[in-house]
Amino acid sequence: MQDQYILRIDCPDEKGLVHKITGVLYHNDLNIIRTDEFVDKESAYFFMRIEFAGNTDENKIISGLIGILPSNSNISLNKAHKKNIIILATKEHHCLGDLLIRYHFNELNANILAVVSNHEVLHSLTEKFNIPFHFVPHENKSREEHESEVLHIVNAYRPDFLVLAKYMRVLTADFASYFPNKIVNIHHSFLPAFIGANPYRQAYQRGVKIIGATAHFVNENLDEGPIIAQSVIPVDHTENATDMARLGRDVEKIVLAKALKLVFEDRVFVKDNKTVIFE
Amino acid sequence: MQDQYILRIDCPDEKGLVHKITGVLYHNDLNIIRTDEFVDKESAYFFMRIEFAGNTDENKIISGLIGILPSNSNISLNKAHKKNIIILATKEHHCLGDLLIRYHFNELNANILAVVSNHEVLHSLTEKFNIPFHFVPHENKSREEHESEVLHIVNAYRPDFLVLAKYMRVLTADFASYFPNKIVNIHHSFLPAFIGANPYRQAYQRGVKIIGATAHFVNENLDEGPIIAQSVIPVDHTENATDMARLGRDVEKIVLAKALKLVFEDRVFVKDNKTVIFE
Amino acid sequence: MQDQYILRIDCPDEKGLVHKITGVLYHNDLNIIRTDEFVDKESAYFFMRIEFAGNTDENKIISGLIGILPSNSNISLNKAHKKNIIILATKEHHCLGDLLIRYHFNELNANILAVVSNHEVLHSLTEKFNIPFHFVPHENKSREEHESEVLHIVNAYRPDFLVLAKYMRVLTADFASYFPNKIVNIHHSFLPAFIGANPYRQAYQRGVKIIGATAHFVNENLDEGPIIAQSVIPVDHTENATDMARLGRDVEKIVLAKALKLVFEDRVFVKDNKTVIFE
Amino acid sequence: MQDQYILRIDCPDEKGLVHKITGVLYHNDLNIIRTDEFVDKESAYFFMRIEFAGNTDENKIISGLIGILPSNSNISLNKAHKKNIIILATKEHHCLGDLLIRYHFNELNANILAVVSNHEVLHSLTEKFNIPFHFVPHENKSREEHESEVLHIVNAYRPDFLVLAKYMRVLTADFASYFPNKIVNIHHSFLPAFIGANPYRQAYQRGVKIIGATAHFVNENLDEGPIIAQSVIPVDHTENATDMARLGRDVEKIVLAKALKLVFEDRVFVKDNKTVIFE
Repeated sequence: MQDQYILRIDCPDEKGLVHKITGVLYHNDLNIIRTDEFVDKESAYFFMRIEFAGNTDENKIISGLIGILPSNSNISLNKAHKKNIIILATKEHHCLGDLLIRYHFNELNANILAVVSNHEVLHSLTEKFNIPFHFVPHENKSREEHESEVLHIVNAYRPDFLVLAKYMRVLTADFASYFPNKIVNIHHSFLPAFIGANPYRQAYQRGVKIIGATAHFVNENLDEGPIIAQSVIPVDHTENATDMARLGRDVEKIVLAKALKLVFEDRVFVKDNKTVIFE
Repeated sequence: MQDQYILRIDCPDEKGLVHKITGVLYHNDLNIIRTDEFVDKESAYFFMRIEFAGNTDENKIISGLIGILPSNSNISLNKAHKKNIIILATKEHHCLGDLLIRYHFNELNANILAVVSNHEVLHSLTEKFNIPFHFVPHENKSREEHESEVLHIVNAYRPDFLVLAKYMRVLTADFASYFPNKIVNIHHSFLPAFIGANPYRQAYQRGVKIIGATAHFVNENLDEGPIIAQSVIPVDHTENATDMARLGRDVEKIVLAKALKLVFEDRVFVKDNKTVIFE
Repeated sequence: MQDQYILRIDCPDEKGLVHKITGVLYHNDLNIIRTDEFVDKESAYFFMRIEFAGNTDENKIISGLIGILPSNSNISLNKAHKKNIIILATKEHHCLGDLLIRYHFNELNANILAVVSNHEVLHSLTEKFNIPFHFVPHENKSREEHESEVLHIVNAYRPDFLVLAKYMRVLTADFASYFPNKIVNIHHSFLPAFIGANPYRQAYQRGVKIIGATAHFVNENLDEGPIIAQSVIPVDHTENATDMARLGRDVEKIVLAKALKLVFEDRVFVKDNKTVIFE
Repeated sequence: MQDQYILRIDCPDEKGLVHKITGVLYHNDLNIIRTDEFVDKESAYFFMRIEFAGNTDENKIISGLIGILPSNSNISLNKAHKKNIIILATKEHHCLGDLLIRYHFNELNANILAVVSNHEVLHSLTEKFNIPFHFVPHENKSREEHESEVLHIVNAYRPDFLVLAKYMRVLTADFASYFPNKIVNIHHSFLPAFIGANPYRQAYQRGVKIIGATAHFVNENLDEGPIIAQSVIPVDHTENATDMARLGRDVEKIVLAKALKLVFEDRVFVKDNKTVIFE
């Protein structure tokens, strides 16, 4: 039985990169399962992701790559593994419910370590699936105090990623900065349209004919992090803001699950606040 | 052979409107071909569109309707007819080309009276279809001077509608006010995202995964008029702003044509800067 | 507090139907909440659905309608109510899981009376939501014997509808005939493409670029019942049959839920093996 | 100024192919612009397309590749160039019109050498764009006689590809065999649904909720060639077969143009009656 690895490289583009990188693997007698690469022409920047299998000395591979890559390259080599995640939610159940069902049937490529919420509403649902639920009320606390309690719990689990599954609290830039490109949020609009509060009400008032949802990494600027996945559905004058919110729930849960699959399989690179994704 | 009519009514909602309105037609022995109605619950406002056939005294119908409708109702009764339109364009050919082909094969439900442009680029294409082309250069003129020349030409044709088929000049509020809900524009973004200049460049820089186009009526506020139709396509990191613009052209021309069909068939109501559309 | 009713009428078209039907409600002082009607021109057949509120003698309304409608009309008048349903499933969890979550949070407009399955796989999931699970193995039984056992259980609950949530047994024409337009199935292809076994394998082998799912009523002919809703997603050469099946699951569960909403809200008419749906 | 090349390779997969192929280009000091590769796991077959620039001896590259590739590899190396095409059409104008507009504005990546039709309807449209139109009536001729006349004209132009832009004649297997993977057809249904005559009528009668169009290579079996691109739009009970045909026209022309772009840019591989496409 061979180990499965994922190699990710990004660096300034130069001639011969594909040849040289695949050469390191070839000369170590490794089996490439899948190769994806992309060169962004505007920035002359190179991205590559390789899945390979074989029994190897990881350090030897890294060392070989360092020898042939530009000095400012980012290299990561990991055995394929399930990610450990914490889900943050508030009251809405559709995204959490969808993730719990996927998790229960081993479709998530992640271990849900715990669910943290500022409300009790989703407690019983979470416990049906034998996952710890942490209720961290936010009443009578400053944003920083509340976040500090959440952070205390989250850090105890040492998760790879945080998933905001309709977590309706605005995170501080400080909190976001602890988890760079490690927090995935689902925003209930087709960003950058309708940034801010109550996007379905905004969409209704503007009279749009299509609504959507956006899964993105969270950075220090609310709703402005790198977009991972978006999806939309048509609406018309017969749908009011409540109808749009109901219809939007199905879009939100599917696009969040799609984004998480991409992230958990190490398919997403972030550069200049945009994503390069090898689907 | 019977005449075909389109009756459009909008008014505050009250009990019995459908019964009373259809009664006026029934008691005049007219054949209803299709009925659509909608009540907006938030504003308690009623919209109805009826296609009917028959030989009748139009004034008798109007008079009957006035007798049973609230005093602040809007009533319009017209024989179905082709609309007369002027197309304004600049340099891009895809929307104009698509409309000319449809027109040439009698698929537009409109007569293109003329094309007006601030460039010469589309002159030869337009003439292939035997349609007058008016070149109105904008160089060394104030916005008002240029618009005044355009207006002079447009008014001479007495069109029912103006179609902005990638007309890249910003209209003044004054110009827009002469043609309330009579100017249809195609905007090359999924409004309200990327208002303003170069939306594809904006979309590229934001890293969105879906781009779109929006057909809307023009009012005094740029890009903020009532939306008629929108459509989208997926993009990814391999498309730069130029690629997005190219892909967007197909979306733009189809969504503009779709919106014009709805408008020219009198299917679009405007209320509170939103549209009610009976497709 | 007023009762809410749903009135459904279908009959051969004739002049004045809308006027006369709305007249019966108007003269009984009832509040029409929403009206939808449609005339199929090819068959000259009329469909109407009215939601109204008021306290009334139902028989008086029915009697009034009989007096003004053609003699071969179908009339149904019901108080709006949650439907009682039985879900049949096999091993796949995604549709059942999605319906259970919706049910648990009161989003299904139905009571799930029980889940019946020919496998045990979904037992524990079902019990998490406190719903009876009936395991009816099919081994060593004729199709008729197995169905007879299922029927025995189903009939004991007296459900309004049966939902086949990836129930992988072919129903006999006899079974289907007991529940005309009362069984909703989700088929994992874009019907009528890929009728029969293993549609994702068929789709992969044909090399299609789009796959889909179809929710339909079950009639005596496998996969040929009236279509209620369909949805699709793009695929490409990188997806094999297994990948398509995985991607298809999200389409299947969403389109099944959408169809059930329409059916449970009495929005779906069936005529000539096709549906007329007032969304 | 450097020449631009497109290199296409397909062969049984084996270890090191990417490394070796890119090595041939690297050691010839060529600039790789874009690389795409794909391994089909089921058949263990390898596909690669490389765009590169440089001034080189083509035979030296070919020779280098032969030296490192399996003996049963397919290798093609061409300077990027506009394809020469003949369009075959019948009476419908929408696909032809769309292609003519694109061609006129240099967006097609192809030279339209001529249009051939079994009707005169599209003559004047074609001539507007200064393209030869050949009218080859089919009345009172056997299929073989008619095809022989068409073939005579087509061969005189020595085209790279034939485009069937709603050409409503069934080609014989013989005709198809002269142009293997060189004839692109647009079929007005979402294949493999509704093979054969009048697919919109079939779709209407089946009551589908989505219709589509399929661009495919033509092989000896009608409607069964490798699929290049598909697209769909929603329909409902209000659309009859004529409406579907009208709505379908916009899908047909866009999906045909999309497929042609892919084909003309040498992005499409055919293997086992399926396509591998590097978009």
